[in-house]
Amino acid sequence: MGRVTVRRKTTRLNAGNRTERVDTLAVEEPLELRVGGESLQVTMRTPGDDFDLAAGFLLAEGVITKPGDLLNMRYCAGVDEQGEQTYNLLDLVLAPGVEPPTKAAKRNFTVTSACGVCGKDSLADVRTKAAWNLAEDATTIAADVLTALPERLRETQKVFDKTGGLHAAGLFTAEGELLVAKEDVGRHNAVDKVLGWALREGLVPLRGTVLAVSGRASFELVQKAVMAGVPALAAVSAPSSLAADLADEQGLTLAGFVRGGASNLYTHPDRIA
Amino acid sequence: MGRVTVRRKTTRLNAGNRTERVDTLAVEEPLELRVGGESLQVTMRTPGDDFDLAAGFLLAEGVITKPGDLLNMRYCAGVDEQGEQTYNLLDLVLAPGVEPPTKAAKRNFTVTSACGVCGKDSLADVRTKAAWNLAEDATTIAADVLTALPERLRETQKVFDKTGGLHAAGLFTAEGELLVAKEDVGRHNAVDKVLGWALREGLVPLRGTVLAVSGRASFELVQKAVMAGVPALAAVSAPSSLAADLADEQGLTLAGFVRGGASNLYTHPDRIA
Repeated sequence: MGRVTVRRKTTRLNAGNRTERVDTLAVEEPLELRVGGESLQVTMRTPGDDFDLAAGFLLAEGVITKPGDLLNMRYCAGVDEQGEQTYNLLDLVLAPGVEPPTKAAKRNFTVTSACGVCGKDSLADVRTKAAWNLAEDATTIAADVLTALPERLRETQKVFDKTGGLHAAGLFTAEGELLVAKEDVGRHNAVDKVLGWALREGLVPLRGTVLAVSGRASFELVQKAVMAGVPALAAVSAPSSLAADLADEQGLTLAGFVRGGASNLYTHPDRIA
Repeated sequence: MGRVTVRRKTTRLNAGNRTERVDTLAVEEPLELRVGGESLQVTMRTPGDDFDLAAGFLLAEGVITKPGDLLNMRYCAGVDEQGEQTYNLLDLVLAPGVEPPTKAAKRNFTVTSACGVCGKDSLADVRTKAAWNLAEDATTIAADVLTALPERLRETQKVFDKTGGLHAAGLFTAEGELLVAKEDVGRHNAVDKVLGWALREGLVPLRGTVLAVSGRASFELVQKAVMAGVPALAAVSAPSSLAADLADEQGLTLAGFVRGGASNLYTHPDRIA
């Protein structure tokens, strides 16, 4: 298994001084996912929790919804030119009847306009794929629980403390209990690792939970939460317009600027008591 | 043309108080790029500077290296189901002899190991595609110019001031003069917009310049700088391991944690005087 951090010689400039020192960097390495021998995607990620990452990616793409949909995952058994096992290729085996993601993606990626995609098409694409109805989740979350989540998440970030280079995602109960937290150089990977972990634990759909993320809330992150059945997403920074549009349509409570004991609720504020 | 920001009703939670107000969000919309009618990629971006974004993307992928490689760009002339022109599809026309990116990507994406990609393959891929040799660029940059760049960049971020939701990238001369700055919900898009602008202005390869980015330095951002001939990259936050590896190999000066008058130089510190 690859390492999560590496040490590297660095020149520190500060107030006219120049000193040599050793700095710790977060590792970034490509991970290739294959289904039936066909390459599905290559993502740049921090090694570790790769099975969770793969499961979360397939969940977010609407390919799988339960642990049994994914029969097996294994690292490629071979070695690279230097004779090393790189642990950068995962072979995924889907259950019979579960459609491989390439075909599923082609079918679902409906370009409804001759002039290409638009925000409305992106919303419709998630509508087609979503397996859960978040509107049915009557979870309420206390306002002080919500606003405390980023600090709770920050406390779990062991690698960030060393490198300053990792995004984090954490899954909490509505009462603020931490279920799991993951770090990665890519924000979407950290979320895939958290949601894939939950799927493999049999916890999806994730009713009664809140997903907290260390940065901004994009369309893609709201999509992942919706596909996993998470009713609330709390981001430390700003959401985008399309993130708010998707959350609104799908019944997800979207909180942004969750910091300093305060928060903005962009959609479905009734879940926050 | 789509708007850069939208206003949205928001519930503000603060110290037990709940107030309704209107907040400004950064717009995120899909942009589809097509070459010869074939879809090349869909990226989620903030509308505006789409021609620069497309040119920068093709430059970073090694498809084009000069303005004449890209004969024409135009928005699809049709309308969507609601009768609106969405400005979300760009048709790109390449010059004769310039290979469409799909074929180029297939040829260059060499999987050298039976066990899939690894960091070394990612470095080799850039080595194959890079048209400039950064080691030949003898630019030096004063340390105080370098450490002042993030603040200079921050001053240009008009949309961030309103939304808190945009990444920024700025191109500066070695003397610290701002050439151009762009904002986007995606960090890679902000960089593509900057480098694509430079290509269309005939400034590539960008000898004697520094690219400043508002966040972290990933492998992808270093790749974009290398492909545009930029000899130095200054990031406000941490670089990843593979970003530093690529910068080291390609002769790019990589500065991280550029803030508060200080900086860490991870590779080729000799350019900083």
